[in-house]
Amino acid sequence: MAQAEIGLIGLGVMGSNLALNIAEKGNKIAVFNRTVERTHEFVEEAGALKDNIVPCATIEEFVAAIRPPRPIIIMIKAGEPVDQQMELLRPHLEKNDIMIDAGNANFRDTMRRFDALKDSGLTFIGMGVSGGEEGARHGPSIMVGGTEDSWKRVEKVLTSIAAKYNGEPCVAWLGENGAGHFVKTIHNGIEYADMQMIAEIYGILRDGLKMSATEIGEVFATWNKGRLNSYLIEITAKVLEAADPIGGKPIVDMILDKAGQKGTGKWSVIEAQNMGIPATAIEAAVAARSLSSLKGEREAAEKILGLPAVAPLSVSDRAAFIKDLESALLAAKIGAYAQGFAVMAAASKEFNWNLPMPTIAKIWRAGCIIRSQFLDEITSAFTKAPDAANLIVTPAFADMVKETDGSLRRVVSAAVLAGLPVPALASALGYFDSYRRGRGTANIIQAQRDFFGAHGFDRIDGADSHHGPWGSGLGAGA
Amino acid sequence: MAQAEIGLIGLGVMGSNLALNIAEKGNKIAVFNRTVERTHEFVEEAGALKDNIVPCATIEEFVAAIRPPRPIIIMIKAGEPVDQQMELLRPHLEKNDIMIDAGNANFRDTMRRFDALKDSGLTFIGMGVSGGEEGARHGPSIMVGGTEDSWKRVEKVLTSIAAKYNGEPCVAWLGENGAGHFVKTIHNGIEYADMQMIAEIYGILRDGLKMSATEIGEVFATWNKGRLNSYLIEITAKVLEAADPIGGKPIVDMILDKAGQKGTGKWSVIEAQNMGIPATAIEAAVAARSLSSLKGEREAAEKILGLPAVAPLSVSDRAAFIKDLESALLAAKIGAYAQGFAVMAAASKEFNWNLPMPTIAKIWRAGCIIRSQFLDEITSAFTKAPDAANLIVTPAFADMVKETDGSLRRVVSAAVLAGLPVPALASALGYFDSYRRGRGTANIIQAQRDFFGAHGFDRIDGADSHHGPWGSGLGAGA
Repeated sequence: MAQAEIGLIGLGVMGSNLALNIAEKGNKIAVFNRTVERTHEFVEEAGALKDNIVPCATIEEFVAAIRPPRPIIIMIKAGEPVDQQMELLRPHLEKNDIMIDAGNANFRDTMRRFDALKDSGLTFIGMGVSGGEEGARHGPSIMVGGTEDSWKRVEKVLTSIAAKYNGEPCVAWLGENGAGHFVKTIHNGIEYADMQMIAEIYGILRDGLKMSATEIGEVFATWNKGRLNSYLIEITAKVLEAADPIGGKPIVDMILDKAGQKGTGKWSVIEAQNMGIPATAIEAAVAARSLSSLKGEREAAEKILGLPAVAPLSVSDRAAFIKDLESALLAAKIGAYAQGFAVMAAASKEFNWNLPMPTIAKIWRAGCIIRSQFLDEITSAFTKAPDAANLIVTPAFADMVKETDGSLRRVVSAAVLAGLPVPALASALGYFDSYRRGRGTANIIQAQRDFFGAHGFDRIDGADSHHGPWGSGLGAGA
Repeated sequence: MAQAEIGLIGLGVMGSNLALNIAEKGNKIAVFNRTVERTHEFVEEAGALKDNIVPCATIEEFVAAIRPPRPIIIMIKAGEPVDQQMELLRPHLEKNDIMIDAGNANFRDTMRRFDALKDSGLTFIGMGVSGGEEGARHGPSIMVGGTEDSWKRVEKVLTSIAAKYNGEPCVAWLGENGAGHFVKTIHNGIEYADMQMIAEIYGILRDGLKMSATEIGEVFATWNKGRLNSYLIEITAKVLEAADPIGGKPIVDMILDKAGQKGTGKWSVIEAQNMGIPATAIEAAVAARSLSSLKGEREAAEKILGLPAVAPLSVSDRAAFIKDLESALLAAKIGAYAQGFAVMAAASKEFNWNLPMPTIAKIWRAGCIIRSQFLDEITSAFTKAPDAANLIVTPAFADMVKETDGSLRRVVSAAVLAGLPVPALASALGYFDSYRRGRGTANIIQAQRDFFGAHGFDRIDGADSHHGPWGSGLGAGA
C-alpha cells in the first residue's frame, strides 16, 4: 500500500542529498535508481533517516509506493536522459501524476516536455534548484514552474526542505510550464555578472594597487560586513585568504585564469537577445569567461601588443579609493540585477507567466549562490512597486544609484586609464547613463538608416514627415 | 528556345533594380512576377534595356526561357514566402537547376533549404546582397554560399553586376550552404557597431562639447578625408549638415531618438553566443538600439534619477580632444571588426565553410554600407596573415591599436566622468585590455566555482591538484 508522499529517481550526489533532505524533514520518500546496488548503498548512508525512505528495486514497486497523485522528482543528467526516463516512467503512471525535472534544464526543453504531456492526464513540473550539493542536502532555493494544482500537491514537501530566510521558505510557484527553469537560468546569468564584477575589482586591487591575495581577502572580508554582504563576497574573502597546500602561497595565485562555463549564462544572453532586452552586464561576464579560456591567444597577444602603455594606477588616498571600489561594486551590481529582472519581466509577458518579481527576489535571499541582504532590499522595492518599469527607478534603488554611481564613474575611469579591463563594471555604468537620458543619440542612427535604406524616422514635433531631404540613398535593411 | 542567361522572380524594388543591373551589363535575363501587370510595367521602365529582358507570363514560359542549368534568383519577402515560392518552382525545374535566395535570410533557414534540395538533383544558393536599392541597381557587394559548381554557373553574371573596388569585383563564393547569408549577417552586425560608435562620438560632441549639428557635421566631413574615410562617416557628415525642410533647423535635431532594427544585429549576437565568441561591441550596439526604443522609460527615468550629477566635460585643448575622438573612433572600430572576423572564423570551423577572410574583407570594400578604405587595410592584413588568431595581432593592426588605444582610453575616461554613455566604445577598449593580458583575473572565478560547486581548476604549475583547501561548498553548476 502507498506510503510515500513523494518519489525520487536518480541517486547521484544531488538526488541523494535532496532525498535525505526530504526524509529528514519528516516526509516519507520512495527512491529508485537505475542500479539497485546504489539504492541499497544509499539506504545505508541514510542512517536513522532510513525510516522515512522506501527503497524500490523496480519501477512498478516505486510507483505503487507513492500516494496518488504521484509527484516524482527526476534528478539525472540534463538533456536526452530526462526524455528517456520520462518515456520509461510514463506507462506506469496514472491521471494527475506529476513528473518533476529538478535538473539544470534549458527552459525551452521544459516547455516542450510540459506541452508533450498536455491532455495526457499527466503533468510536468520544471523545478530550478539552486544551492548545489550542500543546498540540496540542507536547504536550496527552489523555483517551481507547472500547473497550480501540481504545485499544491508538492507545496508542503518543498516548503519543508527549502532554505529559510528569517523563517520564510525560499520556494515558490512562479508560473506555468517553463517559468521555474527560466528564472533559474536568469539567476545563473546574474551570478555570472556578480562574479565577473568581483573579479574586475579584484584585478584593480591586484594589478592596480599591487596588493597581495591576503590583503585583498581582508578587503572583501570587511566589505562582507557592509552593504555588499553576500555569499559571493564571503567566499571571495575565503578563497583569497586560503593557502596552497602545495608550497603555502595563496592558492588563488596558483590557479590558472581560465574560467569554464556550463551554458546558463549563454542561455540568459540569448533569451535576452530574443526579446530585445539589454543584458549587457551578463553579456560582458559571459564574454570575459570566453576570453579567459583563450589563454594561449592572450599570452601571444601580450607578446605582440604588450600590456597597455599607460601610467600605473595612481591613487592619492588609498583608503578613499577602496571605499570607492566598494560603492562602485554595489552600483554595478544594481545594474546587473536591474537587467536580470528586466529580462524576466519581458519573458513574463512573452510566455504569459505573470512572474511575481517580489517573490523571486524573496526566494533568492537564501539557499542560492547569489543570496544576499541586497536581495531583501530588492524584495521590498518590488513589493512596494511591483509594476516598476525597472529596478533602478524604484525609490530605494534610485537613491542607491544616485549615491553610488559617482564611485562607479571614478573607478571605471581610473581603471580604463590604467589599462585594467572592467567590461562588466563599464557596462553597468553605460546602462545607467543610457537609461536615465531622455534624449539619446539614436536620432543620428535613424538619420543614417533613412539615408542609406529609406527606413524613415519619427520627428520630435510629431510632424508627418518621415524622410530626410537627402532622397533615398543606398539601401541596407539594417 | 532558351535565350536567357539567368532568371529572376519578384519584381519589387530590389528585384527590379537587380534585373536592370543584370540587363545593363549585357546579360539576357528572364523575369517573372506574381502579377503579370507588374511585369509589363517593369519592361516599360526598362527602356532601352528591354532588349536584354525576357518577360514571362507563366512559370512554364519563364523556365523554358532560361539556358540550363538554370540559375533563378528569388527576390521576395524573406521567410515563409521563399519556401512557398520554392515549392511552386520546384516541379518545373530540371537536374542541376539552381534556386537562388537573394533576400535577407537567416542563414539557418538557408542551411535548411540547401539541405532540403540535397539529392534532389537541384541545388540552392544563399546570396547576401548588400547595398540595398541603389546597390542592387548599380553595384552591390555580393556574398555567395552554395556548391562550387552552382557558383561557376553564376560567376560571370554576378561578377558583371557587382560593385568594383579599383576594378576588383565585390563578389565571391564564400563556401557551401549558409556561408553567404552568414557573412552578410555579420556584415550587418559590424554595421550596427560602426553606427553606434559614431553615435557615441556624436553624443560627446553634442552633449559634451555643446557643438551644433552643423559644426559636428564639419568634423565628420574632415574625418572622412582621413583614416576614417568610409561611407558611414561620409553620410554622417551629410545628415548632420542637412536642413529640415520644415523650419530649416538641422534635420537631425528634429529626429526622434528611437532606433529601429530588423534582426541581423540580434542574429549576429546570438550566433556569437552559440559559439562562445565575444562580440561585445555588436552586443553593445544592439542593446543601445533597444534602450533607444524605450523612449518613454528613459524620459521617466530622467525625471526620477536626473542626468548624472557630474561636472560637465572639461576640455582644455578642444582641437587636441577632437583629434583624440578621431583616433578613439578608429581604435574602437578596429575592436568591432576584430570581433566580427573572430565570429566568422569560429563559424567557418563550426560549419566547415573554410571562409576566406581576406576575400570577405575585399568584397566589403565597395558596394556595401560598411565599405571603406579601412577594409582595404584589413584585406592586406589577412592576406599577409590568413591564419592570424585575431585581426589585432596582425602586424599592421597591432601597430594601429598601439597607436590609437591611448586616445580611446582618454575619450572613454572623459565621457564616463561626464556621464555621457559610451557602451560600444568602452566595450572595444575592454576587449583590447582583456585580450592583450596574458594573466587575467579568471583565477578568482575558478576559485569561487570550485568553492561553491566543486568544479575544480587547473594550476599554473600544472600540478595535479584540482581543488582548493576549502572542501566542497555549496554547489551551483554555473
